[in-house]
Amino acid sequence: MASVRIREAKEGDCGDILRLIRVKTVGRKPGGTSRVRKTLGSALRADGFGENPFYHCLVAEILPAPGELLGPCVVGYGIYYFIYSTWKGRTIYLEDIYVMPEYRGQGIGSKIIKKVAEVALDKGCSQFRLAVLDWNQRAMDLYKALGAQDLTEAEGWHFFCFQGEAMRKLAGK
Amino acid sequence: MASVRIREAKEGDCGDILRLIRVKTVGRKPGGTSRVRKTLGSALRADGFGENPFYHCLVAEILPAPGELLGPCVVGYGIYYFIYSTWKGRTIYLEDIYVMPEYRGQGIGSKIIKKVAEVALDKGCSQFRLAVLDWNQRAMDLYKALGAQDLTEAEGWHFFCFQGEAMRKLAGK
Repeated sequence: MASVRIREAKEGDCGDILRLIRVKTVGRKPGGTSRVRKTLGSALRADGFGENPFYHCLVAEILPAPGELLGPCVVGYGIYYFIYSTWKGRTIYLEDIYVMPEYRGQGIGSKIIKKVAEVALDKGCSQFRLAVLDWNQRAMDLYKALGAQDLTEAEGWHFFCFQGEAMRKLAGK
Repeated sequence: MASVRIREAKEGDCGDILRLIRVKTVGRKPGGTSRVRKTLGSALRADGFGENPFYHCLVAEILPAPGELLGPCVVGYGIYYFIYSTWKGRTIYLEDIYVMPEYRGQGIGSKIIKKVAEVALDKGCSQFRLAVLDWNQRAMDLYKALGAQDLTEAEGWHFFCFQGEAMRKLAGK
């Protein structure tokens, strides 16, 4: 099994992250098509690598075997940021995680999740939240196996979202 | 009906915000008791009013009628922060909203939500997310009436959370 390293992304990784996001969105759901906006590449740079970044990113890379001429290859990412709970204080949120299908089953997703938990503790967070679609049973099983609780199932939390015209109307604009 | 003003909270509002959080946690669910930690007052100050705040807060205050000697009275709050969607970019998240029971039915909650939508548009956010417990039908109806979509119902999003011992174990600490 190839050696895998999980590390904080640098600005130079944005091309790789964008490549993975494109692949993910195409293959997200049977029959799905990529909905990635054209400006995503520049947005990823501006929003993640400025003075007050809107997000942080971990990348998973396969390290070359001894003697191999190829450099490390980025095969997965985890995008996270810090949020705030009135009750629990500083909290980390894993917004998006992806591992290329060809590299699944090697524990790379778990390694990314564990690294996020390490960052959470280092930064004084008492919670680590994430969300998952209920058709993604494989991911739900993994998170539960790693110790997460399904708060939608256990407590009845529902996600709501305003966007587009509804948000503009709400703001009176 | 009394006149209501929604404004950004200042550090001096932390006492009022803490008072409301205490009332909210006691009355959160029938039979519930306050689970607010002792250090919440200092945490609210440190985490919301430093150089890089972890959260932002709006307060709703009732303005005194002409000739009244009392000052404005804070009767509600909305705690929000900025998050990031891989697909949609900058997004605002309303973590917690509360209006004292005595002041409900006057549209104060809606005013807080509308102000959050205004901030969202001003800051270039394309989404405004929040979460609600499914026993809180009144809140769910309000958000839907204001134009929000229930993404748990529509798309199957589930909230997951690691905390306490599960998070430390995950991080190998």
